[in-house]
Amino acid sequence: MHEIGFLRDLAIVMMVAGATTVLFQRLRQPVLLGYILAGVLIGPHTPGVLVGDPRAIDDISNLGVVLLMFTLGLEFSVRKLREVGMGVLMVALIEVGLMFWIGAGLGEAMGWQRMDALFLGALISLSSTMVATRTLAECGLRALPFAQRVVGILVAEDVLAIVMLTVLSAMAIGGAMEAGAALAVVGRVGLFVVAGMILGLLLLPRLIDYVAGFGRDETLLVSALGVCFGASLFAAWLGFSVALGAFLAGAVMAESRSVHRVMRQVEPLRDMFAALFFVTIGLKIDPALLWQYALPALGIAVVVILGKTLGVGMGMVAAGQPARSAIRTGLSMAQIGEFSFVIAALGASLGVVGDFIYPIAVAVSVLCMAASPYLVGHANGIVDGVRRVVPGPLRLLLASYAGWLAGLKPVEQNAMIAAMLRRLLWHIGVNVVLVVTLFVVGAYVNAHNWAWFSTLGAGRDLRHTLIFAAALFVSLPMLIAIYRKAEALGMLLAELGIREHFAGGYTHAIRRLLARLIPLGTLLALGLLVSVLGSAILPPRGVAVLLLVAGVGLSAVLWRALVKMHARLQAALRDTLDGPSSGP
Amino acid sequence: MHEIGFLRDLAIVMMVAGATTVLFQRLRQPVLLGYILAGVLIGPHTPGVLVGDPRAIDDISNLGVVLLMFTLGLEFSVRKLREVGMGVLMVALIEVGLMFWIGAGLGEAMGWQRMDALFLGALISLSSTMVATRTLAECGLRALPFAQRVVGILVAEDVLAIVMLTVLSAMAIGGAMEAGAALAVVGRVGLFVVAGMILGLLLLPRLIDYVAGFGRDETLLVSALGVCFGASLFAAWLGFSVALGAFLAGAVMAESRSVHRVMRQVEPLRDMFAALFFVTIGLKIDPALLWQYALPALGIAVVVILGKTLGVGMGMVAAGQPARSAIRTGLSMAQIGEFSFVIAALGASLGVVGDFIYPIAVAVSVLCMAASPYLVGHANGIVDGVRRVVPGPLRLLLASYAGWLAGLKPVEQNAMIAAMLRRLLWHIGVNVVLVVTLFVVGAYVNAHNWAWFSTLGAGRDLRHTLIFAAALFVSLPMLIAIYRKAEALGMLLAELGIREHFAGGYTHAIRRLLARLIPLGTLLALGLLVSVLGSAILPPRGVAVLLLVAGVGLSAVLWRALVKMHARLQAALRDTLDGPSSGP
Repeated sequence: MHEIGFLRDLAIVMMVAGATTVLFQRLRQPVLLGYILAGVLIGPHTPGVLVGDPRAIDDISNLGVVLLMFTLGLEFSVRKLREVGMGVLMVALIEVGLMFWIGAGLGEAMGWQRMDALFLGALISLSSTMVATRTLAECGLRALPFAQRVVGILVAEDVLAIVMLTVLSAMAIGGAMEAGAALAVVGRVGLFVVAGMILGLLLLPRLIDYVAGFGRDETLLVSALGVCFGASLFAAWLGFSVALGAFLAGAVMAESRSVHRVMRQVEPLRDMFAALFFVTIGLKIDPALLWQYALPALGIAVVVILGKTLGVGMGMVAAGQPARSAIRTGLSMAQIGEFSFVIAALGASLGVVGDFIYPIAVAVSVLCMAASPYLVGHANGIVDGVRRVVPGPLRLLLASYAGWLAGLKPVEQNAMIAAMLRRLLWHIGVNVVLVVTLFVVGAYVNAHNWAWFSTLGAGRDLRHTLIFAAALFVSLPMLIAIYRKAEALGMLLAELGIREHFAGGYTHAIRRLLARLIPLGTLLALGLLVSVLGSAILPPRGVAVLLLVAGVGLSAVLWRALVKMHARLQAALRDTLDGPSSGP
Repeated sequence: MHEIGFLRDLAIVMMVAGATTVLFQRLRQPVLLGYILAGVLIGPHTPGVLVGDPRAIDDISNLGVVLLMFTLGLEFSVRKLREVGMGVLMVALIEVGLMFWIGAGLGEAMGWQRMDALFLGALISLSSTMVATRTLAECGLRALPFAQRVVGILVAEDVLAIVMLTVLSAMAIGGAMEAGAALAVVGRVGLFVVAGMILGLLLLPRLIDYVAGFGRDETLLVSALGVCFGASLFAAWLGFSVALGAFLAGAVMAESRSVHRVMRQVEPLRDMFAALFFVTIGLKIDPALLWQYALPALGIAVVVILGKTLGVGMGMVAAGQPARSAIRTGLSMAQIGEFSFVIAALGASLGVVGDFIYPIAVAVSVLCMAASPYLVGHANGIVDGVRRVVPGPLRLLLASYAGWLAGLKPVEQNAMIAAMLRRLLWHIGVNVVLVVTLFVVGAYVNAHNWAWFSTLGAGRDLRHTLIFAAALFVSLPMLIAIYRKAEALGMLLAELGIREHFAGGYTHAIRRLLARLIPLGTLLALGLLVSVLGSAILPPRGVAVLLLVAGVGLSAVLWRALVKMHARLQAALRDTLDGPSSGP
């Protein structure tokens, strides 16, 4: 009765979305495109305007991104992420790099300014998670293995997008960026993902299963949303995107036994906000501007579709996938989307790009979005067409490359040893990341909370000593675990490396030496890494040495207790990941 | 990464809500109270403020009311509404009237201004749909018959709330309100409800079942939400509350075969926004103000709890319910809620009440809300306590009243005749409402769209003629149906009223006369009603007579076609209501 301004806009948007979804479903056209067109029709740029001020709607449509990433995470468990892991990251690096290079080159070829060209490169390098996943769902292909790989690459792209956004804004402000700073950003993102996952896996699935035990859907939903939004906020607070936080929360929660109940509750929320999200994109479009930039937009859209398909396809082939699956994956990702809007808006708000970048980004994304369902739906026909065009020798080359890759895979006894090696290295890696995380957190606390320490009367040295000591002692279980795994690694490598017929009577002695050297070397390397990372919180040298001695002493005394503690944590983690009832 | 201000607030609210729901569930305390307390804790009035500007959150938490009313409607089908119908409205009238009288009296007894006292009466007369239904759900009583009755009374109260809001704002502006204007408001609400239901029943269940046929949850959800928000907007546009529109949309949709699928999709949305709604109430509370008005608030809360229990209980007993069920119903409604905030805010915004009204409303509602789960949970004990206190003779009186009421119910042959009479009267009533609605809509169009007619070159007379003719001809099927039902009624009454042993040989003639008189009388009465209602659009007398003659002529010529058309509409309506697979 009162103050229905916001509710009025929302009601109009929902009504239009409802009519659109029914109409486009009936006409067998892509519903996403329908949402956007409907948004244009009711938007502020069309005569007979219905929604005058889309800002409030914009606010809540952003929830769509968070909820979409969360449900993607729920579907895409940590286990699956680990399985596709490296291959997917490699593909994403190849295709994003290629598209960035093409985009920047295209911009310069059109005579644009350097920053305009760079932003064009950035904004056409990132596919749209929303469009790709929804198009796959609409074409009924969501459950196929190649669709899982698409999701994997999209997630990897999101990680790259965060790096790109950070680098671009630094460049826009400072004019240029050192490689070191860019690497630091990459490192921070990686650290956040790994540390967040491990801590999350220890806590979240248990928490969610506990809450699910109350047997009330409302409680489960509200707490799952609390975790999702909390993770988004935490990610944003650390300078990452809310999307990344939501995705991690979902991926970790996917290991809970109640993931299906959570999914069922969250899906309607995602559907509602995703509809809002796409109508909102339409609301922001001014048809007149679109028309003005129709020609360059069309050209860029063609480049995006060809480039993405080619880039992703090449990456997939390089990763040993068959050509048909590679091209289908590429076609599914041949579009740009929500991140492109974010990048274009960033450039505009920093004043480093021309006014034409945003409308072009919108126009290109609409064109690609419109094409997407046809590309995905007719992927098989397109693959057959490509097959006919590609010359025989090249096909032969590809086939022999795939054969060579398959031949590289270790077999039988070697496979067992390789698996053991991989496991040890994996354990060492995870523990190293945890230790590094602890020291980085210490440095962060040191940098941001010094005022708090001052009120306690702690000077710089005392503060450093306290934080360093805390980080060191909390790290002890992990450090001991690294030492023990490195020991095992040393023994394994010694067995493999020093053959008896070569070293003769000294075999044993040399093996024992190697078995000792590797863990000590690992610890030394770790010490160096920590002192570099923790240089901001290193206490005066005397104190540092004293603390290290105390740490070693404590390790010796509490060795068994610490080993037990670490084993328990590790067992908890393994339980979560290998639990019989988790996963679909 | 950018513009997360709103998302930040929302994330904090959702995290707090998540933690609260788990904690209070664990402590077996009412979750609603937890939400409100959590809201106070993170609100702008508490040191260490987390959410500084709750306006954006407020906006979207209002969705909670709409979605709650919608799901209430989905659970509470038109069929059920028709079953409890009149009894429930009577109870609501009794208890709302009693509470209004008590509240206004209390305000005057405390020496408040007249308007303050009237607003106090209004705001303590309305129970909280949110709190009552959620408390029942939390106590696991949601499925009991008395809980259904509580929902019925709450819905009737919402209708009264709309009347009250309209009357109060008119009084605040004009100083006083005539009884006629108040009655007109009541009439308009009733008209909207009945007409909305009938039109909705003809369209919505078919639409929803059609959409459900696509087999995609997203499409179903988005279009159901579109209808829900559309109905809310339409209701708001006509000057009713969004809550009423959403409820009607739900109640009508409840007759669709796919109601359970819709329900499953909408429930998570409701749960999320309801949590937001209650945290938002907490956000708005200033604990200092609460403390300042603690004493009067406590007094008023006690009055609300006692008064509501007594009022509802008395109403239920008067409607023939057993005392235990009556008191439980009363205890479930012994609180004030969201409408009280709306009324208090209205008074404040019009500047006719003191500053102390809003904080008192909040304090009273918090106190009642806190008490509610205990009252509902221990209802049986309270009933036993009351039983011991009530003197024997009174109990005997109540029992004999219930017996007398039960004795009033017609049996066997009389029951059959009564059912026939009721059906005929019901049909006539519905058709009369439809005809009246058409003419009122005509008057509305005439009053609001005259500029449009002017551009077509139509003067006042031509405009009136056109609108009147349209309303008349669209009404023809309904008018004929009324005539036919009235004929049947006349015959039935004649059979019953003119016994053979009384009229002898003239029996037949008298009966035939009566059977003709009643339909003619009905039509005459209808004509009078329409000319009063449609007085704004009555064309010049000559034209009106001509139109009426044309109408009668057309009826005679098209009689069979019109009868068939009406029968088809009626059959469609009956199909919807009596379909075998609808309902739970």
